[in-house]
Amino acid sequence: MNKTTLLHEGKAKKVFLTDNSDLVIQEFKDDATAFNNKKKGSIGNKGVMNNAISCKLFTYLEENGISTHFVEKLSDRDMLCRFLEIIMVEVVVRNVAAGSLVRRYGFKEGTVLDEPIIELYLKDDDLDDPLMNESHAVALGLASLEELDQLKEQAAKINTLLRAFFAERQLNLVDFKLEFGRHKGAVLLGDEISPDTCRFWDLETGEKMDKDRFRFDMGGVEDAYTEVERRVLQD
Amino acid sequence: MNKTTLLHEGKAKKVFLTDNSDLVIQEFKDDATAFNNKKKGSIGNKGVMNNAISCKLFTYLEENGISTHFVEKLSDRDMLCRFLEIIMVEVVVRNVAAGSLVRRYGFKEGTVLDEPIIELYLKDDDLDDPLMNESHAVALGLASLEELDQLKEQAAKINTLLRAFFAERQLNLVDFKLEFGRHKGAVLLGDEISPDTCRFWDLETGEKMDKDRFRFDMGGVEDAYTEVERRVLQD
Ligand SMILES: Nc1ncnc2c1ncn2[C@@H]1O[C@H](COP(=O)(O)OP(=O)(O)O)[C@@H](O)[C@H]1O
Ligand SMILES: Nc1ncnc2c1ncn2[C@@H]1O[C@H](COP(=O)(O)OP(=O)(O)O)[C@@H](O)[C@H]1O
Ligand SMILES: [Mg+2]
Ligand SMILES: [Mg+2]
Repeated sequence: MNKTTLLHEGKAKKVFLTDNSDLVIQEFKDDATAFNNKKKGSIGNKGVMNNAISCKLFTYLEENGISTHFVEKLSDRDMLCRFLEIIMVEVVVRNVAAGSLVRRYGFKEGTVLDEPIIELYLKDDDLDDPLMNESHAVALGLASLEELDQLKEQAAKINTLLRAFFAERQLNLVDFKLEFGRHKGAVLLGDEISPDTCRFWDLETGEKMDKDRFRFDMGGVEDAYTEVERRVLQD
Repeated sequence: MNKTTLLHEGKAKKVFLTDNSDLVIQEFKDDATAFNNKKKGSIGNKGVMNNAISCKLFTYLEENGISTHFVEKLSDRDMLCRFLEIIMVEVVVRNVAAGSLVRRYGFKEGTVLDEPIIELYLKDDDLDDPLMNESHAVALGLASLEELDQLKEQAAKINTLLRAFFAERQLNLVDFKLEFGRHKGAVLLGDEISPDTCRFWDLETGEKMDKDRFRFDMGGVEDAYTEVERRVLQD
């Protein structure tokens, strides 16, 4: 499968059209951004690691009944995917309080939530990805109520599966962001699942092993990504 | 019914306990604040007008099957109410895009929404009343999912009733904020409904006739409140 036109260059990936109009290739870059592009840098080998991690996780999810855009890993940085009409809603699932949950609502960082919190954000960098609810998403013409119900239901299932997967690897899945899209009448999970889009804390030590190390200049960013990759790919 | 202890002095009202432990008195002040207290001032006779307007609207809603805290109008500034354990969730209903909907999501001001947008905000001045969703409210221990469903259902009914009421009075009900509370196992509508808590635009001219005139130093604040009061109390 060959890359033809560049469809989109984003903050972390390039998306290329291919000879097959149903398929695209995501190329994972080492570029790293945070706080909606206010902080920029790069993380050595990140693209390679995030591609490997995402491919493994999509495979695991597919094996467990989740429909995703994943077709196959083409190379170190390239993932072959079904072409999605991306739904401009970012779905965030939270198991433990961190990040904006702490800043916005005064949760103590590390508070374990009885039930996962599921949040919808408008995917719009110019507006700083604001939090929204179902009625906003419908009014903005982003999705129908039925689709939003489906996104939330899928997100909850994916959370259950990923928590178990990561717990076996001594990682606490604190929170993560998902994107979905439409493909031939179905709604599929898209984008990536990686330390760029998840918070992982070591289950023993509580150490942060994700993009927060980059966001807050904590050092050891590449080591953390490498260790997450090692644990994800193990067995 | 006599005021005993001052239970709470808020930005716009004082709430007093009474000899009857089921009842409180809301005393409406002329104090006006905006942008969560960053702007302060007063609007001549506002307390008297907002009490009159709220009493009329609560009476109308009760007549139409909505359970409210309203018992009776005691005097110019005093409203006798059932004592509520306030649910710390502000419910906002929007029929037309204005305010934060424009700032946050890029709606064009004045866009008529096909379906009302219903929003939940955490009632917490220190946190600047952040937008939230049902899962936040539950995680924060503010209300059960069943109660939140009830609040949203009541808010939608109240919206239908109030829109009709105001349309007859040549006012476009753009958006408004409600508070609810628990009383003897029931959930009742509480607080006030007034130009402090609603946006009203004249149906003919589009003129703003609410607290936005104070927020944005548009002048004619007292005249606008007086005219809303006149139209609400008519017939
Ligand atoms: N299967 C797919 N088909 C089409 N677009 C996709 C697919 N999966 C992800 N995308 C989109 O491709 C882009 C990936 O690049 P990324 O660097 O993450 O962009 P962004 O800066 O928007 O986050 C995102 O906009 C994402 O929504
Ligand atoms: N029936 C009621 N019983 C008890 N408290 C009420 C009742 N109705 C409203 N309240 C609360 O009383 C206060 C009214 O005063 P206000 O000036 O609006 O306060 P705030 O500054 O919190 O908005 C609010 O905190 C409101 O939640
Ligand atoms: Mg992205
Ligand atoms: Mg108030």
